[in-house]
Amino acid sequence: MARMQRISRRGMMGGVAAGGAMMALGGSAWAAAPDLKAIRAEVDKRHDESVKRLQTWIRQPSIAAENRGMEEGCKLTMEMLKDAGFQTATRMPTDGQPGIFATLDAGAKRTVGMYFMYDVKQADPSEWMSPPFEANLVDKPGFGKVLIGRGATNQKGPEATFLAALHAIRGAGKKLPVNLVLVAEGEEEIGSPHFPQVVRKPEVLSALAKCGEVWMPFNSQDPDGSVTIDLGAKGIIECELVSTGARWGRGPTKDVHSSLKAELDSPAWRLVMALTTLVSADGNDPAIDGWYEHVKPLSDHDKAMIENAAAKQDEKQVMKQLGVQHWVKDLNFKDAMLRLASEPTVNIEGLVAGYTGPGGKTILPSRAVAKLDLRLVPDQTAADCLAKLKAHLAKRGFGDIEVNMTGGYDPTQTAEDSSLIKAEQAVYRRHGIEPLMQPRLAGSWPGYIFTGAPVSKPGGHFGLGHGSGAHAPNEYFVIESSNPKVEGMAGAAMSYVEFLYQLAAMK
Amino acid sequence: MARMQRISRRGMMGGVAAGGAMMALGGSAWAAAPDLKAIRAEVDKRHDESVKRLQTWIRQPSIAAENRGMEEGCKLTMEMLKDAGFQTATRMPTDGQPGIFATLDAGAKRTVGMYFMYDVKQADPSEWMSPPFEANLVDKPGFGKVLIGRGATNQKGPEATFLAALHAIRGAGKKLPVNLVLVAEGEEEIGSPHFPQVVRKPEVLSALAKCGEVWMPFNSQDPDGSVTIDLGAKGIIECELVSTGARWGRGPTKDVHSSLKAELDSPAWRLVMALTTLVSADGNDPAIDGWYEHVKPLSDHDKAMIENAAAKQDEKQVMKQLGVQHWVKDLNFKDAMLRLASEPTVNIEGLVAGYTGPGGKTILPSRAVAKLDLRLVPDQTAADCLAKLKAHLAKRGFGDIEVNMTGGYDPTQTAEDSSLIKAEQAVYRRHGIEPLMQPRLAGSWPGYIFTGAPVSKPGGHFGLGHGSGAHAPNEYFVIESSNPKVEGMAGAAMSYVEFLYQLAAMK
Repeated sequence: MARMQRISRRGMMGGVAAGGAMMALGGSAWAAAPDLKAIRAEVDKRHDESVKRLQTWIRQPSIAAENRGMEEGCKLTMEMLKDAGFQTATRMPTDGQPGIFATLDAGAKRTVGMYFMYDVKQADPSEWMSPPFEANLVDKPGFGKVLIGRGATNQKGPEATFLAALHAIRGAGKKLPVNLVLVAEGEEEIGSPHFPQVVRKPEVLSALAKCGEVWMPFNSQDPDGSVTIDLGAKGIIECELVSTGARWGRGPTKDVHSSLKAELDSPAWRLVMALTTLVSADGNDPAIDGWYEHVKPLSDHDKAMIENAAAKQDEKQVMKQLGVQHWVKDLNFKDAMLRLASEPTVNIEGLVAGYTGPGGKTILPSRAVAKLDLRLVPDQTAADCLAKLKAHLAKRGFGDIEVNMTGGYDPTQTAEDSSLIKAEQAVYRRHGIEPLMQPRLAGSWPGYIFTGAPVSKPGGHFGLGHGSGAHAPNEYFVIESSNPKVEGMAGAAMSYVEFLYQLAAMK
Repeated sequence: MARMQRISRRGMMGGVAAGGAMMALGGSAWAAAPDLKAIRAEVDKRHDESVKRLQTWIRQPSIAAENRGMEEGCKLTMEMLKDAGFQTATRMPTDGQPGIFATLDAGAKRTVGMYFMYDVKQADPSEWMSPPFEANLVDKPGFGKVLIGRGATNQKGPEATFLAALHAIRGAGKKLPVNLVLVAEGEEEIGSPHFPQVVRKPEVLSALAKCGEVWMPFNSQDPDGSVTIDLGAKGIIECELVSTGARWGRGPTKDVHSSLKAELDSPAWRLVMALTTLVSADGNDPAIDGWYEHVKPLSDHDKAMIENAAAKQDEKQVMKQLGVQHWVKDLNFKDAMLRLASEPTVNIEGLVAGYTGPGGKTILPSRAVAKLDLRLVPDQTAADCLAKLKAHLAKRGFGDIEVNMTGGYDPTQTAEDSSLIKAEQAVYRRHGIEPLMQPRLAGSWPGYIFTGAPVSKPGGHFGLGHGSGAHAPNEYFVIESSNPKVEGMAGAAMSYVEFLYQLAAMK
């Protein structure tokens, strides 16, 4: 649920060269690249097989929130990894759903870390034009042939495309230019609560210590072919605040008739009163004691990146997409984008109390719940912020309100001059794409597990190709692109091939 | 939904004589009573027919909230009224579900008004031990043979029992001692939004003007046989407060990714902030501008009635039933009961915003709703209070928050020395029951339509018999009582017979 969700803002962005066709190779870092044509031929030859592999994967839903198909999904993923050349792929038990630890030793000098997820978000079939777990191929005007299904872009599509790249390299008779250490989880969509248990196993830590970086395959291209590289992402705490008569010791312990309000306390009113203490009167700034203690301001360079991005976007178009007329506090577009990258937030995802159906029902509810997500920025940590939230409530006499953290993690940040980011830039540029650099994604992904101690490696996402609809109905992945600026599955696979060779060549 | 719901508090009350057996008749007001034995014989003779009538009625659900079976229920009720001797029974169209206007001219000197409802509350069959619309007869330990079904006690059971009384009087060859004017509605359970349209038709007003009082059949007996007479009831406003990005002109007009909170306003936070202005910091006292302007304090006599009732109840038992450990503001029991009768309230029935399922979902909701019920006391009126609520919000800049009133009405009050109350007391006492007098029910019923202008008659409830589970699963009505203190259907029918004769004898 707390996955990285890119906000598609970049459709109006200028400055993107007409990429898509493979550019001439060049530069010293590229010297080690083999004859890519042979590998591309293998990608094309194995295209149907690659699509079928993705379809097989999507047709096995693994939804942690519903505890559905998890063991099957874990097993299938391990089989696919081994099939693609990983010598080991081990099920890693956790207190929740199992993770995977896989290694591919190619006898190469450089070892690269990778992050996979095998779970997907829930899907309500009634909202889909093509059933979410059938993975049908459909013509999408302006895009070409797309595969529709839950996980098509988040994240099975890019992951299966990376596996297609491995098959193609091997099929072309080439040796993989890097060794791979891969960790996967089945709980990304519920906030990765147990993924640290996988990564912090001694054998995994020791394998990751040998890696230069850790990355995840990703459909980076917007519909106009442009790419943004985010150097980090906000952290997140997802939690429920639960007010009950039972814990409070006041108000009813079961729902009672609403006429009794005159003589009984209300857990719902208590929740409302507690909530108001968490933010400023306009609902926009966290007001939790000590919340800004570790908040690091943006650097001038960060600000310049954001100002550059703001200048390249059409504010009106962005507002229209979001259905808004004003930025918070009536900020201008640039300041709104600066705030988006720099400010922690306390957001209400949901409110649930008492009767929630049509009309009314005369009850005094014994329980009220606010679902919050709190976005964190460097150098806040989820553990410290959770403790601060609880202390804030306790200090104001709301200590009985349960704070149930359901998922979350620290912010993540990777240096612009790291091997990972440089390699990404090099491949994108070779495709004629000048990536828009951004200091931080306002969304979240569990990159801190790799960028924070004890692993402490550069972490990020890479990949050409396009998909959209993550968490929404009709999620899709472009298989055969009708848009010359956007790569289909084969072009995306080739971007992964190039990326591995590029990483092999990095210092 | 806003129906009168009696809070069963009276199980521990002392001072109730061992009633149940019919007492010797006496007193001048009773001189006109006929030979009740002949009528009782008819009640017994027609018992199975009466039970079957009630079953037929329950097997035709009429649920306004679901717009289910309304025309059928209206038609069936009219047929039953005519079958019981009403010469006219007319469907009265409204802007919502139809009402009924029925008259029975017995050529009597006195005319009595009656109020029926033909709708019932929703029922989820999965929660019932016997299906809610099968009306099965079941043995209930400690009670006897009971009928289980939606409407068994609220209100088809008592109403069908009253019809049984009419059949018995006619069957015994007697003339009804009073004329009847009956108005019925099909929207009681959704707050009677269109009932005034029925009552305020000229022909109905003119018929009601001839009545000495208006009453509704009711299972008044608690399991120990005791009876409470409430001289009034609080009024109610049920409404939804709806905060949306669209109306506000800030925040998103559709749900967007929660990471955008940093740059977007939140309609959910706005609702929370607006809500806190409506009550005191402890959530217990209305803080809406001018709310207490027309609040009339309890009289010394009112207070004495409540103190008497408090003294007769077991506080610990009441607390246990409600699942509470403290009264509001740590009041003692007596003061809590005084508050229950005298104070207006602002209660949260429900909160609904964004994601309400298990776990979380990273969205910034575009819409948030609080379902409120506001109980009113004399001399507050629903119209004035609704206007005050809207003005209060507007004054604080929350004018964009919609206030959708879904139902409600004014408080109702009837004088203790009215013909209606005196007749009730007389019949109960003749059964050895000294009714506990209470100034006001904390719940609500649309009695104001009869007790307020332009009708301005005494209004209330009457009847022996017992049932429970209104609005809850396994609603029941005692058909054949195994408890000598509690009347079954036949005894309840006789209480209605006696009541009509008693009313006929009132000055």
